[in-house]
Formats: sequence, structure tokens, C-alpha cells
Amino acid sequence: MFLKNLLKYKDAKNIVFKKLDELIHNNYKRINIIDSWNKISFEDIVAPENLPMFDKSAMDGYALIAKDTFGASENNPIILNLVEEGNLIQNNECMKVSTGMAIPNGANAVVMKEYCIEGDSFVEVRKGVYPYENVSKIGEDVNKGEIIIKKGEIITPYHIALLSSLGIKDIKVYDINVGIISTGDELVDLNDIKDTKDIEELKKKGNIINSNTPMLYSLIKEMGFTPKVYGPVEDNKEKIKNTLLKAIMENDVVITTGGTSVGDRDYTIEAIKEIGDLLLHGVQIRPGKPFGFGVHNLNNRGVPIYILSGYPVALAVQFELFFRSYFRPRKSLYLPLNRNIPSTLGRVDMARVSIINRDNKTYVEPLRISGSGVISSIKRADGYIIIDENIEGYEKGDYVKVYLF
Amino acid sequence: MFLKNLLKYKDAKNIVFKKLDELIHNNYKRINIIDSWNKISFEDIVAPENLPMFDKSAMDGYALIAKDTFGASENNPIILNLVEEGNLIQNNECMKVSTGMAIPNGANAVVMKEYCIEGDSFVEVRKGVYPYENVSKIGEDVNKGEIIIKKGEIITPYHIALLSSLGIKDIKVYDINVGIISTGDELVDLNDIKDTKDIEELKKKGNIINSNTPMLYSLIKEMGFTPKVYGPVEDNKEKIKNTLLKAIMENDVVITTGGTSVGDRDYTIEAIKEIGDLLLHGVQIRPGKPFGFGVHNLNNRGVPIYILSGYPVALAVQFELFFRSYFRPRKSLYLPLNRNIPSTLGRVDMARVSIINRDNKTYVEPLRISGSGVISSIKRADGYIIIDENIEGYEKGDYVKVYLF
Repeated sequence: MFLKNLLKYKDAKNIVFKKLDELIHNNYKRINIIDSWNKISFEDIVAPENLPMFDKSAMDGYALIAKDTFGASENNPIILNLVEEGNLIQNNECMKVSTGMAIPNGANAVVMKEYCIEGDSFVEVRKGVYPYENVSKIGEDVNKGEIIIKKGEIITPYHIALLSSLGIKDIKVYDINVGIISTGDELVDLNDIKDTKDIEELKKKGNIINSNTPMLYSLIKEMGFTPKVYGPVEDNKEKIKNTLLKAIMENDVVITTGGTSVGDRDYTIEAIKEIGDLLLHGVQIRPGKPFGFGVHNLNNRGVPIYILSGYPVALAVQFELFFRSYFRPRKSLYLPLNRNIPSTLGRVDMARVSIINRDNKTYVEPLRISGSGVISSIKRADGYIIIDENIEGYEKGDYVKVYLF
Repeated sequence: MFLKNLLKYKDAKNIVFKKLDELIHNNYKRINIIDSWNKISFEDIVAPENLPMFDKSAMDGYALIAKDTFGASENNPIILNLVEEGNLIQNNECMKVSTGMAIPNGANAVVMKEYCIEGDSFVEVRKGVYPYENVSKIGEDVNKGEIIIKKGEIITPYHIALLSSLGIKDIKVYDINVGIISTGDELVDLNDIKDTKDIEELKKKGNIINSNTPMLYSLIKEMGFTPKVYGPVEDNKEKIKNTLLKAIMENDVVITTGGTSVGDRDYTIEAIKEIGDLLLHGVQIRPGKPFGFGVHNLNNRGVPIYILSGYPVALAVQFELFFRSYFRPRKSLYLPLNRNIPSTLGRVDMARVSIINRDNKTYVEPLRISGSGVISSIKRADGYIIIDENIEGYEKGDYVKVYLF
């Protein structure tokens, strides 16, 4: 009755990621950049223009030909004719410019107005400038044809500034609809809790409030995807099958929680075997061992099905390693451990850690955790480390790779 | 005509943060937790219940009194009477339980079903368990009365799971409406660019596309606040004043961009002086020197006004240091520099850096940047360091405090 033939973490990841490559790497939509914050770019985005688009003044002052000013100083001002906007600048001429304005044709530098005295139709220049001094040159920031955002990058406000500057109004982003099904007789929907009497009732019955659906809902929103909630569904194979089929019809990916073990009430695995292909069940990881993954093929459309644990931390780990990290791998860095961390050979451990600053150094501290249901442990974590199956643990002072939340 | 009497960074920050303490620390709304991802908690949230709310089985198996099993083994199984749900467990009795179910009264441990053989009205137990083995104890995760989320914390999916589990349906979050006004004759709205002809036209006129408004819009959304766009407004003091007054009426904070220097077209500072109090203008930081800050008092309601640069990077830095960091300070850590970074005494430098992993160590690499308009530099950054005004720079190998984007 134990889970048998546990897959290695790497093998399980390969199976899952290959299916994602195959089935949902093509789901995108085109959206206005103003709505693109936190979405994932679906393509390499190439600059259609240089940035700046033309040589610009970086200062308020006078545009001129640099060599006309060579040798100018407080004691040796140089006099240039002031010409009107729209003219070509020739030797011994200058034109008034504000910060950000295009440099007039013929000019190749700007002298700051603080070093000038303007007369009626002339300007006294009291400082020499070299060619392109105080000029933002065309293409200085971005070259036309350059890739400015890579496929898979998360869109930040700084990307949005850059896209705007270049006149790019919409972009392709990943568009993944994810159906969420929590299963379990013991689950009560948060919306059905009206007051503390309902809580007392729930305790008496030994029920619990469904926290997995709200957690997955927000995890999916956080990824820039679109969640849709089904259930919670009681432990009844037919009901689970029907809800699965509905969710498969309406989404690109379906995630279930609960019923992943081999207990009397664990119907999810059975339900998926009956309506689709179960590709794996059980992985050598901790927490998260009873992870399952399958595919349902409907009208030539394959829908990946994630079968996650009912325990919130196991669920969060499975979601992180097998779903989120495919689309949004975490930033990682190497930091020293501030105490030993043991691990069991033959199994990959995903250890939640906090980041500690002390005496101008930064350390990784493994969180002390008991029980895989302890959601407060993952709440407190700043990140996690993956301890490989052939490592018995790390010692204080070892540098470990931390994936930052 | 230079900016004079530049304030020290710390003094400027004090002025701004004190005003925020005074004026907008009370803006909150109550929202459903399902909408609370990425919002900022407005209060310490206390657990109204223990979690788990009762002793729960951590395994599928049989609940019993631990000492009845002492000495049990494969070769020496112990026989217990199997009783129905709803009964009190007494010595030599057990009850079938599934993972997550409440432990029946009288029982204090669970033996996994893999070590049992169930008969008609009895169970053979082939393994001893100690008290509370395979039991998730009441309050093991969270104690009633414990603070589970602190005021100022960003709400994550893991928080949402915890709040759900405890039956908390809504929470108070910061609710800040921010009006955005970009100023500048040269600005063209992105929505007015229909095709490449418009881009060619814009280049000919020396105009640029307004990227500051979209950047601020998404920076504010990213903070969990509500942006509202005004303008862009041309360089005309009356028009700027009128737009400011409208934005002040309709928002809790107003942010302007452009017109912060002392050039002929820099009307924003003048406009704010006429309709409110300018509290500071010019700070010893780089980039971002021409930062200004004021307050408008309308019907006993004070509205902070941020006067930011038109240059995107200066703007981004000012926004980060004087607005975002008040509500959402970045995670920071100490990492060694992989090359020298010079700085000028008497001025705080905000240097954009990237994080480099090499040979299982992590280093900070200052980005090479030319010109404060270079938005691609901040796009590439993984974080930043603040170089104090009394430091001439850092050397390769020095540990510096990095604030992570």
C-alpha cells in the first residue's frame, strides 16, 4: 500500500517539462503593454528603432560646433551668433536648446547655459566643450534590431518604459488558463463560514477550511496566468471524474489537490487513470512525494493534469518545482549556511530557508520545521535550497544555491 | 541657475517619510483575501484559532492509545478491538482514520495502516507507536493569538492559505490612489502613435514618446496601489496648475514628472509653489538630484506631491528611494563586489548592479552606464547599492549591501 517505484526528481521533471513543451508552449495572447506588468513575454522583442531616436541635448544650453569653443574660458569668452530654431548650424553659430530637444543639424555639442551669457543676437560662451559633450547620441540606449526583452522574461515597469519609448503598444505574453480542483470530504469552503459558530461546528465535525484552492488561485495569478476554481469536490470517484472533464474542457492545465496517496479515499489517481493517461505517480522528493502527473487528450488537444497533495506545504513544493519553475525559474544565488542541514540519501530535499544578515555578511538559515502540513513554515521562508539525492546534507559554512521567493 | 542648497539624502528622506507618516498612513480598505495577493497589510493580523484546530491524523491508519502498542512487531502483533466512528477510544481499542481526520477522543497516536491487518471487528497491529506519533497536534502550526502577518507585510499566496485555514475572509490593506502627471512639450502619447509614419513625424519634430506615465502606472500597480493618469501636459504653468489641482482632488498622492530643473520651461516647481508648499527641491543624490517634494492642503486633507525628473532613470531612482521604499522596502543582502566602484564624496550614489554566479559563489557587478536617460540600464539591473556620501567608493572584494529588485 506504500507508493512504489518512486521516480527520481530529475526524471519526473523531465517527463513533466517535456509534456509542457509539447502541449502548452504555444498558448499566448497579444495585450496592451499597459496591462503587461508581471506577465511572461512569449517572444524575443526586437527594438524597431534606435533610442534615443535622434541626437538629443542632455542639458539646457546652446547647441554648437564643438571646435568653435576650444579654448573658451571665463577670461577668454568666445562670441557665437545666435540663430533661430529650424536653421542649420554653421561655424560660429549656436542655437538655444532645452534638455531633451533634438540637436539641430550641423551642431555636435551643447554648452550648458550656466557657462553662457545671452545677448540680443549672440551668446558669450565661457567654457569649451568636446564633440558630443552634453549630447545623448542616437542609439546610445538601444540599437535598432537589438533584442530588448527575451522570450520567457517577466515584464517589469522598466520594460514597459522601454517598450513605450520605442512605440511598441502591444506584445505577446503567455496566456495559460488553469483549472483548480480541490478534493476531500473534510473540506469546507471559506465562503460558507459565516461566524464563529460555523467554526465551532467545523471543529466538532473534524472538518477543515479549504485553503488549497485560495493558495493555488493566488499562486497562479502571481504567475500572470488565469485561474478558474472548481469544487471543492467530495471523495467520490464519479464526481471527481465529472469535475475533471469539465475543467479539462475549459482550461489549458488542470491542477487537483488531495487524493494522491493510496488510501481508501484517494480517488483522484483512479479517476485520472480512467479518463486519461497517468504519466507518473510518486517522486523521490521531500516534501511532495505523492506528486502525480497525467494528460488528457480531448479533440486533439492535450491537457496536462497536475495531481498535487492535500497537505499545503507538499502542494506548494510540487507546484513550485513542477509548474512554476518551468515558466518562472527563481533568481538564485550562492550563500553560506549558518548551521548544518542534514538530508537523506536517495531523496531530493526541498528545504525552506531564511536569509539572515549579520555583521555585513549574509547567511542561509534552514527553517526548523515539523510536519508537512505546517504552512506557516513556507510563509516564513525567504527561499529554498534543493539538496540532491546523493548528498547527505551540508555543513555550516558551505555555500549553497538558494532560490529566492 | 544651478540647483542650490541641495539637501542631504537622509534629510530629504526624513522630510518625505515624516509627511507620509502624517498624511497617508491611515489610508486602508478592507478586501476579500482572494483579492489580497501583492497588497500591503495595514495591520497586525492575529490568529483567531489554533491551527490545526484539533489533533489530526497525519496518516491513513488506526487511532489508538500509544501504550497499547508498546512492544508490537511483525513477530509479536497486538490485537485491538475496532470501534465505530463517534466512540471514545478506550484501552485495547482503535478506530480507522484517514489523513487529516480528527483523532477520536481518548486516542493519542496513529499507527499507519501499512503496519496493520484489519479483521472483522479487530485489527492486528505490527508496530509500536509513541504518544502523538503520526498526529498533527492542535496549535502545532499556529497558536491562537499569535501574530501571523505584520503590518506592512506583502500578502503572498502562502499568507492567503494561512488566512483561509483560520477562517479569515477579509483583511485591511493599504489603499493609496496615486495621480500621475507627465509634463513636457516634447511628449507624445503612445496611443497617438498609429504607424511608422507617426514615428517618422515624431523624429522630424524632435518629439519623444511619453514613457514615464506607463512606467509610473505599472510601478504603482506593482506596489498594490491604484494609479490614475492625467496629461501629458505641455510646459505651461497654468495648465500644470489646473491639472495638479484636479489630480490633488481625486487622489491621495500626486506624482509629476518633468520640469524639475531650473530651465526656462521648468514650470512644475513654480506651479506647486503657487498652489501648495514646496518642502524640498534638490537632493545630493545621483541619479535623481532635481527631486522635489511638496504638500497641498485641501479641506484639511494634505496631499503629498512628488516632483520627479523627466529622465526615466532619475525618475525611477527617485520613485524607489522616496516613495516605494517607504511602503515596500526591498530585501537586502551582503555580497562581494567583483570590481571596484568609484563614487564622489558629498553625494549619495544609487548604483545599479547585477548579480553574477560564478564557481558556486555570488558576486555583485556594477553596471556600466552612461547618461541618466539610459532606461535599458535599470532594466538590466538585479538590484542596487547605496553608496554613502562620505565614501569614495568600494573595492573589488568588499561586501556591499544590495537591495534586490
